[in-house]
Amino acid sequence: MALDRLINAVKRTGNPTIVGLDPKLQYIPEFIVNEAFSNHGETLEGAAAALLEFNCRLIDALYDIVPAVKPQAAYYEMYGWPGMRALVKTIAYAKEKGMFVVTDGKRNDIGSTMEAYACAHLGKIKVGNKEYFPFGGDALTVNGYLGTDGIIPLLEVCREFDTGIFVLVKTSNPSSGDLQDRIVDGQPVYRLMGDLCEQWGKRLPGKSGYSGVGAVVGATWPQQLTELRAALPNTFFLVPGYGAQGGKAKDIAGAFDKNGIGCVVNSSRGIMCAWQAQGCAPQDFANAARREALRMKADIVAAIK
Amino acid sequence: MALDRLINAVKRTGNPTIVGLDPKLQYIPEFIVNEAFSNHGETLEGAAAALLEFNCRLIDALYDIVPAVKPQAAYYEMYGWPGMRALVKTIAYAKEKGMFVVTDGKRNDIGSTMEAYACAHLGKIKVGNKEYFPFGGDALTVNGYLGTDGIIPLLEVCREFDTGIFVLVKTSNPSSGDLQDRIVDGQPVYRLMGDLCEQWGKRLPGKSGYSGVGAVVGATWPQQLTELRAALPNTFFLVPGYGAQGGKAKDIAGAFDKNGIGCVVNSSRGIMCAWQAQGCAPQDFANAARREALRMKADIVAAIK
Repeated sequence: MALDRLINAVKRTGNPTIVGLDPKLQYIPEFIVNEAFSNHGETLEGAAAALLEFNCRLIDALYDIVPAVKPQAAYYEMYGWPGMRALVKTIAYAKEKGMFVVTDGKRNDIGSTMEAYACAHLGKIKVGNKEYFPFGGDALTVNGYLGTDGIIPLLEVCREFDTGIFVLVKTSNPSSGDLQDRIVDGQPVYRLMGDLCEQWGKRLPGKSGYSGVGAVVGATWPQQLTELRAALPNTFFLVPGYGAQGGKAKDIAGAFDKNGIGCVVNSSRGIMCAWQAQGCAPQDFANAARREALRMKADIVAAIK
Repeated sequence: MALDRLINAVKRTGNPTIVGLDPKLQYIPEFIVNEAFSNHGETLEGAAAALLEFNCRLIDALYDIVPAVKPQAAYYEMYGWPGMRALVKTIAYAKEKGMFVVTDGKRNDIGSTMEAYACAHLGKIKVGNKEYFPFGGDALTVNGYLGTDGIIPLLEVCREFDTGIFVLVKTSNPSSGDLQDRIVDGQPVYRLMGDLCEQWGKRLPGKSGYSGVGAVVGATWPQQLTELRAALPNTFFLVPGYGAQGGKAKDIAGAFDKNGIGCVVNSSRGIMCAWQAQGCAPQDFANAARREALRMKADIVAAIK
């Protein structure tokens, strides 16, 4: 099962983190952007070429020490269809290097439409007599506001293609409580959504004890992380919000189980923009990302112990 | 304000409907698919070419009698980046013909990531010294599970580019109640989300009385449509679920205000697959769509009176 593969990759690298690939042009060293513009002009194709080059060099610098990447679909859509092509190529490159890929799309819909998203991101599509994997990720983030009808169509595809999902449960942003903290039958909406994850996960059991239905729970909510870890024994967590959004390693400790597994912690800007934060030469951006990835690993591993 | 433009288009055509463009290869007449495959092979590009040709011929047959189209992003993503390119070209063609375009993406995220979606679908993006509208729709459907942080970044872009959003409130699917019907402080979650729409809409007031923040409410829930129409006087509705999903014209009557405006009713498969339902020649598919669009218009207009 797909999340077993992620857990094995975490064990192999000893690193329960995932690097977000959310590239904006202003995060990318000028020499890469200029090269892309000189080949493709100041066009969406030019921007997409810069994104792809940046991502591939980051992946080169990280693949042996970080188990997974999480490209955020919005930053590719922002550059139109050429951006989406850069997303496809980024996913393929990361997988070629042995990384687990979570496509962060927060997709949601119902019935045959959700099946279409499942084919796009978690399975394949038939065209005449040929078959294609349109995006090819290992897992997809999804939004469960539409209920069970929006999730079931994914699970069939996940089973067939050994892929998984992460459902938004308690998001890292300050106003996530507008809806997620409201009380329903004596418990908050995020608990209700978490319980649904446990229930949906029964259809995709994993060898690790964790199912193929994970949950997104923000590092900015340490108390809820601990509460949800206890309440959802079969649900693996994807934890955004470390670093730039304010989550600290000690805040995340509660997201791990007694065996020291149970989640991957995401950092995006912290890694991508490490060369800017460290004030080093643009040519050193990939090494800066590697240094920050190793620092983050040590920070989190120390907090678990 | 963008939804004023939609309301004016509804008045001009006397037709409060919107046609969903959710093309699957099996909905498209064989002669179109074969032509596309002979030009591009049985590839994602071939599939995308068939989608685009099908959409353009439907738009040609509908643009003078139907005010708006709603391409569903999932069906384009299903064919990878070439599918997304077909989405861009479909939106451009519909706008060229004067139609209002709602991109049905149900996008959701927070902060700078939601801004990226806003730039992609509701605004523009800078690349060097050039600017591009990556997708170019007039409105986007969004999911409000993440709360206010997920919506505010859109509203700035909507104001600047005269575009709008539709927030999922009460969706048409059978299990929408898993979360949306649960009771929070004495009222269902869909009411809470509807009240948030009214509140967010104050930042995008419209001349029609309706704001730039609309709501998605399914035709399959007539009682809730009537309840929400009364409770949300400044929120325009996008109503899916007519036809294939079981919603009838009489079920939708409550979504209109006393002036006979207040919503657009969507039909996707009913229009796209009219040629199959009517058992007519594949070459007649666009005329069949037009006949069904006129029948639907008459059906709904009669139910409002």
